[in-house]
Order: sequence, then structure tokens, then C-alpha cells
Amino acid sequence: MLIVMRHGASDEEVRRVCDVIVEMGYQARPMPGRQRTTVGLVGNDGRVDGSRIEALAGVQEVIHVSKPYKQVSREWKAESTIVSLPGGLTIGGEDVVVMAGPCSVESEQQILAAAEAVREAGATVLRAGAFKPRSSPYSFQGLGVEGLPLLRLAKAETGLLIVTEAMDPEGADQVAEVADIIQIGARNMQNFPLLERAGRSKLPVLLKRGMAATLEEWLLAAEYIMAEGNYNVVLCERGVRTFAQHTRNTLDLAAVPAIRSISHLPVIVDPSHGSGNTYMVTPLARAGVAVGADGLMVEVHDHPELALSDGAQALTPSQYAQLVNEVRAIRNLTSPAAGGTPQN
Amino acid sequence: MLIVMRHGASDEEVRRVCDVIVEMGYQARPMPGRQRTTVGLVGNDGRVDGSRIEALAGVQEVIHVSKPYKQVSREWKAESTIVSLPGGLTIGGEDVVVMAGPCSVESEQQILAAAEAVREAGATVLRAGAFKPRSSPYSFQGLGVEGLPLLRLAKAETGLLIVTEAMDPEGADQVAEVADIIQIGARNMQNFPLLERAGRSKLPVLLKRGMAATLEEWLLAAEYIMAEGNYNVVLCERGVRTFAQHTRNTLDLAAVPAIRSISHLPVIVDPSHGSGNTYMVTPLARAGVAVGADGLMVEVHDHPELALSDGAQALTPSQYAQLVNEVRAIRNLTSPAAGGTPQN
Amino acid sequence: MLIVMRHGASDEEVRRVCDVIVEMGYQARPMPGRQRTTVGLVGNDGRVDGSRIEALAGVQEVIHVSKPYKQVSREWKAESTIVSLPGGLTIGGEDVVVMAGPCSVESEQQILAAAEAVREAGATVLRAGAFKPRSSPYSFQGLGVEGLPLLRLAKAETGLLIVTEAMDPEGADQVAEVADIIQIGARNMQNFPLLERAGRSKLPVLLKRGMAATLEEWLLAAEYIMAEGNYNVVLCERGVRTFAQHTRNTLDLAAVPAIRSISHLPVIVDPSHGSGNTYMVTPLARAGVAVGADGLMVEVHDHPELALSDGAQALTPSQYAQLVNEVRAIRNLTSPAAGGTPQN
Amino acid sequence: MLIVMRHGASDEEVRRVCDVIVEMGYQARPMPGRQRTTVGLVGNDGRVDGSRIEALAGVQEVIHVSKPYKQVSREWKAESTIVSLPGGLTIGGEDVVVMAGPCSVESEQQILAAAEAVREAGATVLRAGAFKPRSSPYSFQGLGVEGLPLLRLAKAETGLLIVTEAMDPEGADQVAEVADIIQIGARNMQNFPLLERAGRSKLPVLLKRGMAATLEEWLLAAEYIMAEGNYNVVLCERGVRTFAQHTRNTLDLAAVPAIRSISHLPVIVDPSHGSGNTYMVTPLARAGVAVGADGLMVEVHDHPELALSDGAQALTPSQYAQLVNEVRAIRNLTSPAAGGTPQN
Repeated sequence: MLIVMRHGASDEEVRRVCDVIVEMGYQARPMPGRQRTTVGLVGNDGRVDGSRIEALAGVQEVIHVSKPYKQVSREWKAESTIVSLPGGLTIGGEDVVVMAGPCSVESEQQILAAAEAVREAGATVLRAGAFKPRSSPYSFQGLGVEGLPLLRLAKAETGLLIVTEAMDPEGADQVAEVADIIQIGARNMQNFPLLERAGRSKLPVLLKRGMAATLEEWLLAAEYIMAEGNYNVVLCERGVRTFAQHTRNTLDLAAVPAIRSISHLPVIVDPSHGSGNTYMVTPLARAGVAVGADGLMVEVHDHPELALSDGAQALTPSQYAQLVNEVRAIRNLTSPAAGGTPQN
Repeated sequence: MLIVMRHGASDEEVRRVCDVIVEMGYQARPMPGRQRTTVGLVGNDGRVDGSRIEALAGVQEVIHVSKPYKQVSREWKAESTIVSLPGGLTIGGEDVVVMAGPCSVESEQQILAAAEAVREAGATVLRAGAFKPRSSPYSFQGLGVEGLPLLRLAKAETGLLIVTEAMDPEGADQVAEVADIIQIGARNMQNFPLLERAGRSKLPVLLKRGMAATLEEWLLAAEYIMAEGNYNVVLCERGVRTFAQHTRNTLDLAAVPAIRSISHLPVIVDPSHGSGNTYMVTPLARAGVAVGADGLMVEVHDHPELALSDGAQALTPSQYAQLVNEVRAIRNLTSPAAGGTPQN
Repeated sequence: MLIVMRHGASDEEVRRVCDVIVEMGYQARPMPGRQRTTVGLVGNDGRVDGSRIEALAGVQEVIHVSKPYKQVSREWKAESTIVSLPGGLTIGGEDVVVMAGPCSVESEQQILAAAEAVREAGATVLRAGAFKPRSSPYSFQGLGVEGLPLLRLAKAETGLLIVTEAMDPEGADQVAEVADIIQIGARNMQNFPLLERAGRSKLPVLLKRGMAATLEEWLLAAEYIMAEGNYNVVLCERGVRTFAQHTRNTLDLAAVPAIRSISHLPVIVDPSHGSGNTYMVTPLARAGVAVGADGLMVEVHDHPELALSDGAQALTPSQYAQLVNEVRAIRNLTSPAAGGTPQN
Repeated sequence: MLIVMRHGASDEEVRRVCDVIVEMGYQARPMPGRQRTTVGLVGNDGRVDGSRIEALAGVQEVIHVSKPYKQVSREWKAESTIVSLPGGLTIGGEDVVVMAGPCSVESEQQILAAAEAVREAGATVLRAGAFKPRSSPYSFQGLGVEGLPLLRLAKAETGLLIVTEAMDPEGADQVAEVADIIQIGARNMQNFPLLERAGRSKLPVLLKRGMAATLEEWLLAAEYIMAEGNYNVVLCERGVRTFAQHTRNTLDLAAVPAIRSISHLPVIVDPSHGSGNTYMVTPLARAGVAVGADGLMVEVHDHPELALSDGAQALTPSQYAQLVNEVRAIRNLTSPAAGGTPQN
């Protein structure tokens, strides 16, 4: 941590800062400069809470050098995490994982048809929401717990793995009985009681990035899960909120190499929520794999124009089959095994 | 709702849109134009879900005219809501409500001293968190349920009302046994199970704006509470996330007149989280009242440099007393009763 | 244009809106609804300025259906524009165009070495700034006019085409004597006198997206150039400003399919300014081509650690050669000719 | 400057960083830590360009402690600048300066009527554009040079001072012959040739904040003007671009105390562009003065519904007269002379 003193801060003020650092159990290294004095805080093992120092007289700014997260970082664990799923599937390994399905479970017939269609198109994991967080209390909220047996049925019929969202701690337990991966949605990225409950589950957790989350906040949310002993966390970039109006969210693909550089966790991309427009989903899916993502989560609906939610961003099964072919070809080209640029 | 067809959309495509509108139970009004056809959907009472139509061939864009919220709007209820609190205090009436206190309950001694100090400085409601949502699992998380009896004690000793945050449905019930107002924090603005539980409480709910929430999303969150039968909702602007780096958040004071124009709910301002810097709190508090807010929520700590969280944005009690005097004088000048510009 | 009246607007107010529409030379189509009346403005050929109507009593909102741009749109010209350059090179055709070079022209030796290096690595256009817009007046500002002869020399020696930036109308004329493409930088996207002067040039213009520009504003800036009779405009996505801190700018790759859908102009991507970090440039370049861009502009420097500006985002020539190979392979896979998903 | 090395950077890499620092003429202070080594660069007098060091192997991050601006800062000049205008008017002194007028000069009759109206309502400076930067080439672009004599006339008739915008270096010279203050618009905040020309003028310069400008970029733009010897710079906050849709821009009032803390330059607020909605202008004007601004720039039009541009955000003269009364009363309450909270 570096404490930047104001121009003209008194010796007394600098001394007080040094004393507080020592009281806190660290060492202080004052560095007088031409314009101002800075004080280095050393001897810390991880980030120090700077708010007490920020409140002292003469302090202009506190600059953190240590990161506040630990277990998520590559400095903690250098090798990339590979999350293992039933049936030998992995996330973070050689293959790009393709998760697909409708926005929500609507009925037995709909989910079975959708599951069959995405399986044929090449998907290995079925995504579909039983619990749906919706901005309006008057929108379709999903079938709730009644949707879970339908997901179990779809799994039994198709052999697809299941990823589905939990919205509160109680729901996390319910979801864990059916799903192979518990999804935490963007709106709940900082729902800490939910993160802790998911952390106490034995299942892998798919953690979507919050709509206005910095990478640091996103990684700290993953840290909440890991701090409970669950190391199987998959990050999912799904776009952030900006001034741009041509998409529902701005897909921040640079987050993929950035995460890969600072964390060992696998990261996938959701081009459907990341754009909100059908015609952009395939180009952005290709870009997601080209930038180095470990997988894709895509909305596919048998009859998008009949979907109860998010129809405008769903692909048809045949569009999806084409997408899968294209991204697998790109993956083959760009993987390190194929001579692609190493990611780190 | 207005459906904008693509330039060159076929008659067949326009007809299909009209048919779907009729199937959905509304009437279609096609308007051929020089550049393109637009189709008006009429006969709706509230917002129609447009995703099914957006997915049809030839449709370029769906424009909503109706707002998705109802009970929060001035069209639903023209008179401004005045929230009544025990002891005759109101939010949304003539007086500007001043809520103040430390970020978190730290100990009996600390909370009693702080409560006494803010009461003397003019506050009528004590704010302090027992449950603290923190970005990092390694930061001080508040005392949790053990903090609640300390708040009860502070209330008994000082006569101040209590506002404190709940982070999950279970916590909402616990908070409701002690507090006079349940606070929903910015990170939980779209934690729908929590909103519903708060909606089933009899207590007023203070709903902070999410970090990247549009006014529509914020009002819909309030609608979740009202849809459960709880009409005592107070909105709190606390800054949004932007590219700006000179503040922790960008305080969006234009949201106050904007909310006042479209909603009957009272709205207050939090200049402490809205800036993150002590020296900005008083100027922004003045601005908040000058722009028409019904109240202020301000962090005050007896010894900011000893605070376990957010010390860098807390005022001392004497700074706060000066603030209260200044904002009361501004309120007297600008209230409609004093000949100020009417808000609507 | 659709005029949304306030709930409870009087008949008199609706009539006044209709009268003004007729005075302006259009027809008014009032549509009474359950919640409010809306009025369609028809008979317009392009966007109507709505500010006069917005100022009328009882008007809540004016919604534009027509776009304000014309010549840039696919509705004006359905076939994609292919910009022809000397020597048979094209932008917007089959091949992905690779522009590369150092941030700025620093010396004869430096620019000749850099030009030679990028040519060998596969580039066909040399980028390098003589005029450099720098945030600080104390930073290296480029060689100015003295840099132009060095670019001419580099062109003569290597056969590369030249793209370089102009910062004011006079500079546009100077640049036009040496360059094959005039570049308008992000900070000058709405420097209208500069756009007009570039529009009167015979050279193709590369128009970078402004740091906070919507697609509409970007296309209107291109419209300024086309309105002067210059139809050879190439758009360049280079990232926008958001709250994200892991990159210098947030590269908005969804802008590529979005532009392609509404405009016939070619669009390229600048992953160097779009990220600001060397290690992200190649992944984002791959993503840019995968999403459908017509070309790439990349910073390459013989000795990045000696660059007078932007060294931290420059690739070495050998990194760049690898990048060119990878993006050409992706282009081959994803082009419509290769059976890739059609863009529109 | 602080150089943060990667975790695991080799001694050789640290040594290379130190060597480069010495080659650049400064001293290096390596500080080995538990997690990583950091290297302090000392002996610099102002900000050092870090890009050369950022490009070195083993470097994770370069953190600047020195600010890149000089003459604009309070460290350079501690007393607040008071800009003197003809007739004894000042900006930055006791009184709040009220600038008002229509968006653009439309005709002799219009500008004379508007000038008379705002003078009677209490304004002391007339704002009106002869040169109008408009997003679309098809919008009314102002009268151009022909508008300047009309401004001269309005000045002669009313005694008001004139502030009007220049869009390019040549225009700055033309404007300087008529105006008392040269305005640089938000779109041109980083039009460096224009800033330099305005810097060589003897007139005060009103510098609007760019739509996505950080305070550092804004102050550096002011530094361009001061570096040419013109010390009479007035900053104007006019809102920034964010995701918010209820206003044209998000007015960042915290920028006022932030600027006041780091710079000696006066700062005013434009609530008209800052909101884009008539009904918000007065509340935001009050807030602007309450937060400590030295003045206001407000759009006023005799007949807003007839304005050729920006009618939807213009006040009528009587609304403006009320605004002036209210903000003067707030200023009297909150000025340090009246016992208001000191700003620094």
C-alpha cells in the first residue's frame, strides 16, 4: 500500500501516518519527494484496509498494490483450473464447452423438444431457468420449483448435463438436487448469502458477471464461493451496462484474456444476453472463442417467436448447429496445441 | 407499443405481425410510411411483452410507449406519498428527514456514543448496519444478528428511529423486529425474494438505487414491494457507476426531479456513498436538498479514523451539525410553501 | 415520429400538437389509447427535428422512428461499399486488411525499420502518426509536418500504403499530399470542420469511433464526410469509455455486426487502443476478425520499450506476424464464401 | 511513480527496471515485499512518461503518483483564480455569475428580444451560438459568421457581456473580435489546435467538460490553454455520458468540489445541457449553486416552442427570473462569508 500525502503536509502529519501503520502491525517507509512525501506500507500479506489511514489529516490518496482476492488468483495457484463434470466433460480443458437451451422451462413438451434439439446440434449442457429473475413483478417468473422435475426429466431423456439458476439460499439447495452446475445470475453476483450457500454445495458454480462489476468485484464474488471450500467456479462474461444502445449489454471480450492473466479459473461467454439480438449471437460467439473463452452459453428455442421470455435473442436449433461447427473450427485453429498464441 | 418494420418488409410480414397482435388479444393499426411501415398495438392496459413480436421476420424494432410499472407511478396515484413513522415523523412532507450514523454497528459503546452524537446534531433517524454486504469475504462483515440488540438499545436510549439493512429474506424478518425502516442496499435492489419478503412486512422500506439501475428498473423494484401490499416505500439515490474516478460513485441528482415527475414515492439522497469522500459530503447534501430530495442519509462517526469500515467518507458530529443547519435553511428557501419553484 | 402525450393531456393540447405537425408540413394521426393518446407524424422523408414539439404543453415524449442519417445507411444503398486503394488493395472485400506500424513517426531510421518489419510480417498499409493528439501539452506531440516526408520515404522504400491522422482542416490538406488514407481520430470524431475538409478530399477517410459515441453519432459523423461527396469512408471501432479498469477502453465488438446491419460502410477494428495492453492485442484481433471486421489496425514497434508513445500496447514484428497468420486463417473459415454465417 | 513487478519477477528483471529509471535521469528505490517487489521512481519534478517502463519484462503495472498537469493545480497556485470581465464583473468571486440566452442566434429580432428578456431577468452575460456544432449535417448549423454582428448589436443594446462558441482555430479569431468570453464546447474539449489558438487570445476561455472526460483530461485541456499564456480559464460542468436515459447527460455535480480541491480555476454549471429537460433545469441550477459552483449557464428562449434548436430544454424568461432569485438566496446562505462550510 502506498500513502500519498498532500503537497505541503506537515512532518507531524507524516509521522502520524507512520505511527498508525506501525499500530496496525506493519512497517512504514516514508519517501520524501520533490512535490510530496509518499509512505510505503510493507510487511503485509494481502490487502490492508486503508480506510482508517485515508481518514487521517494530510493524506491525499491511498493506493493499493496488493489485490484483495487470494484463492482465485494465479499467484495463489499457477495452473489453470479444469472443472470436471459427470460423464467426463470438463470446462477449462482442450474443448470448448457448449451450453444451450431456452431462457426458461415452460412445459414438459417444450423443454424435452428443446433439449433434444440442442443435443442434436452439438450441445453437451442444457441451460434453462426454473427460477427466473425478471425486472418486473408482472413478467413471467418461471415455473419455480415445479420446473425442476422437468429438468430432471430432460436430463434423463437426453443425457445432457443441466445448468440452472438459483436466486436465494433456499433455492440453491433445491437446484442442487437436480442440476450439475448451479448458476448465479448477474443480478445476484453480490448476493453474498447466496454465494456462501453455493460455496457450501459440492456442485460446480457458474458465476455470471454483474452488470456493472469490475473484474476485482467479480473475482471477489468467486472468492466468497471458494472461501467456503468449493473450488469449482466457472466465470461467465455476459456483457456490462454502458451508454451503448445498439445492444442490451456491451459484451466485454477483453475480460477473457484479462481474467486468464490474473486468475486460474475458467471463463465462458454468453453472447445471447451479451447482445440481446439474434443476428449478433453467432458473430459474438465466434469472437468469444477466438478471444480464448473456454465455452459458450447460448439461448436456443425451438420456436423463438413463441418463447415466454427473451425470444428476441434466441437462435433456432439449425442456426445453433452452424454456430457450433464454426466455433469448433476456430478453437482448433487458435488453441495452443494448434500453434495459437499462448494466452499467458 | 409501436412495431417498426424493416425498410422493404413484405406485405406478408406486416400481415403476420398484425395477426400475432390479434392473437395476443390486442388490435393492430398498420401505418404505411414513405420509408417503412409501422404498426401500432392498441387496446393494451399496461406494457405488453414484445419479445414474441421482436422475433418475427421483418421486424426491426419494438418501441414501448406504456411503462412497465403501475402502482409506483403518478398516473396511478397523483398525490405524493407521505410515509408516516412512529413519533409523528414523516418522509415526503414539509420537513427534510435527516438520517445519520456510522456505517456499521461495532460495539455497544460505539453505537451509543454515535447515536447520542447524531441526535444532538439534529438527526431523527439512526442508520447503522448490523448486516454489512462487503465486496470481499475478508473484510469486516458487521456483527450480524448480534448487532440488532445494540440497535434496540440505542433506540431506547436516544429515542431515535432505526433504519438498518437486510441482506436476505430471513434477515428481513430479523431486522423487522428491531427497526422502524428496513433498508434494501444497492447490491440487492434486484434481489427479488428479498423485495417480496420486505413487501410482506408492515414496515416502511428504504430502497437504494442499484449501481447501474435505470429509473425504470428502480421503480420496478419498488413495484415488487408494493405488489405485496406494502405502500410505504422510500427511494434513495446513492450514486451510479460511471467512468468517473474522482468519486466512488457518480451521484445522479437529476434522478430526484425525474422520480418526482413519474412517481409519487418520496426520494432521499445519500451523499456519503454517493461520493466516498468526506470533503464532498456537505456540498452534495446541500445540493441534494436544493434539487428537491425529501431527506438525507449521511455517514457520521465519532472517530472516523477508527471506523471498521468506510471511515474515509464519514463526517464528524460537529461537521454533521453544520450540515443539518445548512440544509434546513435551503429547504426553507426552496419549498413550495416558501415560494420555491413547484416541482411538477 | 411518435408523440406520446401525458396521461390526462387535454383535447386542446392534443389538437395543438396536431396543428403544429400540419404547420410543419406533415400529417398527424392521433391514436387515443386506454392510458394516453399518442400522435403519429407521417409524410416525412427522413428524421424531423422534434424539439419544437417537445416544448409543447401536454407532450411527454417524442420518439423517433426515422433515423437521422441517410447516405451511410443500407436503406440508401443496399450493397456493401468496397473502398479501392492504389495497387489494387480493397477494404470491404474478401480479404481482411492489415494496417500496422508504430504509434508515431519518430525518426527516419525508426520509421524505415518499422515499415520494413511490418511489411515482412504481412501488413499492406503502414500506420504512423506525424500529428499526435496527446492529452497533455507536455507529452511528445509527434514530429508534425516534418514527419510527413518521412512517411513518403517509407512508402517509396516499402511500397506500403500510408494511413495517418489529421487534427485540423489545414492538417487534412497536408496529410492528403502524402497519405493514401486520411485518419480522423477518436477525439476528433465530432470535429465538424475537419470532417467537412476530409469530405472534400479525394482520399478515403478512416473514421475512428469517438470515446463515448453512439452508433448514431458515429454514422452521422460519416454522413458529414459523405455529404461533401466523398463516399470512401472506413469506420474503425477502437473501444469506448466505460467503468471498466482492466483495459484502456472497452472494445465494443458488437458494434461490427450492428454497423454491418444498418450501414453499407466497411468497418475495421483497432485492438491496440481498444485494450492498451500488449498481451490482449492478439486475442482481440482474432475476435475482431471472427466477429466480421474488414480489417485490423495494430500498433507494432521494433523496440516497444524505446517507443516515445504507447509502448505498452505495441507488438513486436514477430508477434505481429503470428497475429496475421491467425486472423487470415479465421477469415478463411468464417467468410460467407467459406460457408460462414451470412452477416445479414 | 511506482513500478509494481509481477509476482515471481526475476532479480534480473528488477535490475533492468532500475537501470532504465537511471538511464531516464531519475533514481530507483526497489522495495522487496512478501508478495512482490515494487520500485519507487524518485527525483522527478512532474509526471514521468511510464510507457517505456511498462513495456519491460516482469512489470505488472505502473502507478503514477504525480499528476500530469501543473499550472491548473492548487499546488502550483494556492489562491482561487478570479477572472475579471469588462464592467467589473468577475467569475470566481463572491457573486454567482448568471449567463443565459438562447441556444443559437437565429435573427436580429430574436436575439435582441432574448437579450433584453434575460437582462431583465437578472442575467449579466448573454450566451448564444453563431457557430453550432450539431450531430447531424442536416440540422440547423447556426448563422455562422453572420451571427457575430448580431451578437455585437445585442451587446450594444443591452450592455450584456457575450459568451459564444468557437469550433476551429479560424473561428476563435472571429469570435474574439465580438465576444468577451470564448466558449469551447464539449465536443471540442480535446481539439488541441483550437485550445492553443484560444490560449493565444487575450480573452477568458470557458471550457466545457467533454462528454466522457475524466477530471484529469479536462484539467489537461485547460493546461493547453494556460501553457500558451492565457490564465483566464473558466471550467463548465455540463454532464457526462452514462447509461442513464432519463436525462440527456448525467450532471456530475461532485465534479465541482473535486475541481475546487485540486485546481484554483473557477467552475460553473450548465443545467440545461446537463439535463435536456425544462422541468429539471431550475432544481439542478439550485443544486449547482448549493454544491459551490461560481456560476450558471442556462438556456432561455422567448418562445421555446419556436426555437430552431434545443427548445425542449429552454426556460421562459419568467421561469429564469425565478431561478435567479432562488440561486442568489442559496448563494447568500452557503457562501463562506455567510458561515457556509468552507470548500477546502
